[in-house]
Amino acid sequence: MAKVQPRTLSGFMELLPARQVQFDRMVDTLKKIYALYGFTALDTPLIESSEVLLAKGGGETEKQIYRFMKGDTDLSLRFDLTVPLAKYVAQNYSNLSFPFRRFQIGKVYRGERAQRGRFREFYQADIDIIGDGKLDISNEAEIPSIIYKAFTSLGLNRFQIRVNNRKILNGFYAMLGLTEKSGDIMRTVDKLDKIGAEKVAALLTAEEIGLTAEQADEILKFIAISGSNAEVLSALEGYRGRHELFDLGLDELNTVTKYLAAFGVPETHFAVDLTIARGLDYYTGTVYETTMLDHPEIGSICSGGRYDNLAEYYTDKQLPGVGISIGLTRLFFVLEDQGYLNDEMNTAPADVLLIPMTDDLAPAIAMATQLREAGIRTQLYTEQKKFKQKMAYADKLKVPFAAFLGEDEIAQQSVSLKNMITGEQKLLSVEDAKAEIGAMIADSAALAPIKDR
Amino acid sequence: MAKVQPRTLSGFMELLPARQVQFDRMVDTLKKIYALYGFTALDTPLIESSEVLLAKGGGETEKQIYRFMKGDTDLSLRFDLTVPLAKYVAQNYSNLSFPFRRFQIGKVYRGERAQRGRFREFYQADIDIIGDGKLDISNEAEIPSIIYKAFTSLGLNRFQIRVNNRKILNGFYAMLGLTEKSGDIMRTVDKLDKIGAEKVAALLTAEEIGLTAEQADEILKFIAISGSNAEVLSALEGYRGRHELFDLGLDELNTVTKYLAAFGVPETHFAVDLTIARGLDYYTGTVYETTMLDHPEIGSICSGGRYDNLAEYYTDKQLPGVGISIGLTRLFFVLEDQGYLNDEMNTAPADVLLIPMTDDLAPAIAMATQLREAGIRTQLYTEQKKFKQKMAYADKLKVPFAAFLGEDEIAQQSVSLKNMITGEQKLLSVEDAKAEIGAMIADSAALAPIKDR
Repeated sequence: MAKVQPRTLSGFMELLPARQVQFDRMVDTLKKIYALYGFTALDTPLIESSEVLLAKGGGETEKQIYRFMKGDTDLSLRFDLTVPLAKYVAQNYSNLSFPFRRFQIGKVYRGERAQRGRFREFYQADIDIIGDGKLDISNEAEIPSIIYKAFTSLGLNRFQIRVNNRKILNGFYAMLGLTEKSGDIMRTVDKLDKIGAEKVAALLTAEEIGLTAEQADEILKFIAISGSNAEVLSALEGYRGRHELFDLGLDELNTVTKYLAAFGVPETHFAVDLTIARGLDYYTGTVYETTMLDHPEIGSICSGGRYDNLAEYYTDKQLPGVGISIGLTRLFFVLEDQGYLNDEMNTAPADVLLIPMTDDLAPAIAMATQLREAGIRTQLYTEQKKFKQKMAYADKLKVPFAAFLGEDEIAQQSVSLKNMITGEQKLLSVEDAKAEIGAMIADSAALAPIKDR
Repeated sequence: MAKVQPRTLSGFMELLPARQVQFDRMVDTLKKIYALYGFTALDTPLIESSEVLLAKGGGETEKQIYRFMKGDTDLSLRFDLTVPLAKYVAQNYSNLSFPFRRFQIGKVYRGERAQRGRFREFYQADIDIIGDGKLDISNEAEIPSIIYKAFTSLGLNRFQIRVNNRKILNGFYAMLGLTEKSGDIMRTVDKLDKIGAEKVAALLTAEEIGLTAEQADEILKFIAISGSNAEVLSALEGYRGRHELFDLGLDELNTVTKYLAAFGVPETHFAVDLTIARGLDYYTGTVYETTMLDHPEIGSICSGGRYDNLAEYYTDKQLPGVGISIGLTRLFFVLEDQGYLNDEMNTAPADVLLIPMTDDLAPAIAMATQLREAGIRTQLYTEQKKFKQKMAYADKLKVPFAAFLGEDEIAQQSVSLKNMITGEQKLLSVEDAKAEIGAMIADSAALAPIKDR
């Protein structure tokens, strides 16, 4: 028969079993942490009506969307988890309680240009808190504190959450009479890391934006404010009283900074950073980005912010919220690429490979049942192979233990347990074998999926 | 602004938060059970190249497939998890260890006619064991024993796994000289439950299939064999020696029946049933269906079997396997519809709603951190609302506990804990509050997501 070459589409991540275990451990850790903070899980369809999904319309994203007809129906694959959330909240408004805290970890689709480390199918891991009419500022501190907890639980340590407030930026531009140009200015200032202050100044004063040299200077001086969080906040006080929106933003930033500390985020892990703006129009208050300190070139691994109107395309209800998103597939790719994955984790499909040494499988089956009842992941090996091949299989699977059950062991109600790492083999009672395997499981469960310096 | 009506496509299940908790609990239970038996998790793309996905071609399924172009690429959404598994195994053959045991729980897509209880996007929960060249028969008993364990762990009790062997059927038709017609015969016999024996006989002897009345009688007599498993197996012995394939199938069925008992499946929960054939061509040995005893009209909720050649469209390697699949979305729909979901489960997003009664949130934040560190899912309620509204929110969320932290409690390093079910409120030390909430969590974790009679 003619064969079709089996292959996976470019831009689609498909992992080998051991890597999948590491990825899943990351997902499970995030789910557990999100749940600890009172977020409920949502699972929305991958496919939506194009009319619904693209209600906002326009923009760069639209070109990347997987959109197609099925019969007469115009369908699109979701490109983020925020639009489906907006739809869900508007649609189920009367059945939800506000503030509504939800997390969603799911795949989204964007037809990006194929490129190493860029994915067309990728997981996002989102949390959002949606208010009905109002939402307290403390939520804007809790969200990054959850991210701090999530990343440290994953084993990541060398990262920093950078926090700013759009009201401060918009208020500052208003002071300079540049409100109309604030979009252009922010997009230009966003390039600071890449092209440097001089080129940013040149762009700002060039015809297209058309600032005066003084205005450009003021802006560069402003975003150059740096130092400890207290120093930055204190420098910002120097601008107080010149514009209402600025003052409000500064109050918010002060409050968020204070509560971030109360929520247990150490100063080493968050920084007030006036260069953070976030491109998206809908952010209206606190904004976040998160950088890996040893890999700033990767850009933000977790971003989000406060918005005033989640679902304006679907409902007249005012639904303010705050949310943050981890691009999990890309993060996992980077972690693997940079050697951050903890390969000391037990990634085998089983804790023990149970190898019957008798023709009658019944005693081995009974023992497998006992081990599984004790929570031990047990694979029964029943293929007709030579002993050497069975051991080679155990090695290749990387199971931590192999167990042999022959006539002698059955007669003594015991089992021969071989530690596949040390090579040590012992004849043990079933209870002792359970305890030994159980200790390994506990040790392994305590390992984080990421090994950071 | 003109609004777009927020809606979810018909045939796509989207759950409210409490229902989602129940669904997720089912998924988590399945994952846990599958892992206990040494299966590793896979996660393959939702989208594949049409050439790869449709390598087998033809058939009813192809019409239902979501297929579309993105640029120049012909893409399809997966319609099951078996074809992606075949692709994966062929593609990663040299990196896998055989027998390869994998589970996958994921969404698949079929453009079925919209109908109540029929879904276009639905979860399948599959387990398969793939051998390299050979695969021991004991795996054909272990697979249904895992399903027994999975369903009972979900809380389902009134079900029966029905087992047959395609070699017995094919061997029997060969005895009658009807090998060529066995496909037509099996498809007709499959209608027995729906149309009765008389009409099946009429169809078998009609021109299209063209059996003699004697042949039709023999077949109906054969598939009418019933009784206890021992009785059915004993009746089948009466046919032994007339055809090699039949004898081999009978040996296999005897072995599978013996091991099913060893794997702990009680006789009440499995039945040798000669009417089970499974439509798919690729099953070659043991086949399974699973029926809800009180709802036979639903059809099989979990089906599968043994196949000899998983990936013949992709590789020359002989890869026999055995697998089974639960149609999880449809099962969940039925369970909800028939009132099987256990609404005693705690489906609230948090175990406790912590309500600060002071302006300064710092003590409440510190207590929330303590509770979370004890594994208690804690939501901090910080909105500026009247006390009554806060309690209405707690009621609507159905949180089991509300906790109040005012000046008095802070001074006494304690907390007022209200049991939202009994209405009882107590001033407790933080340790005692943790213990009380912890006890509820343990009770709730012990509840199965399904409540069967």
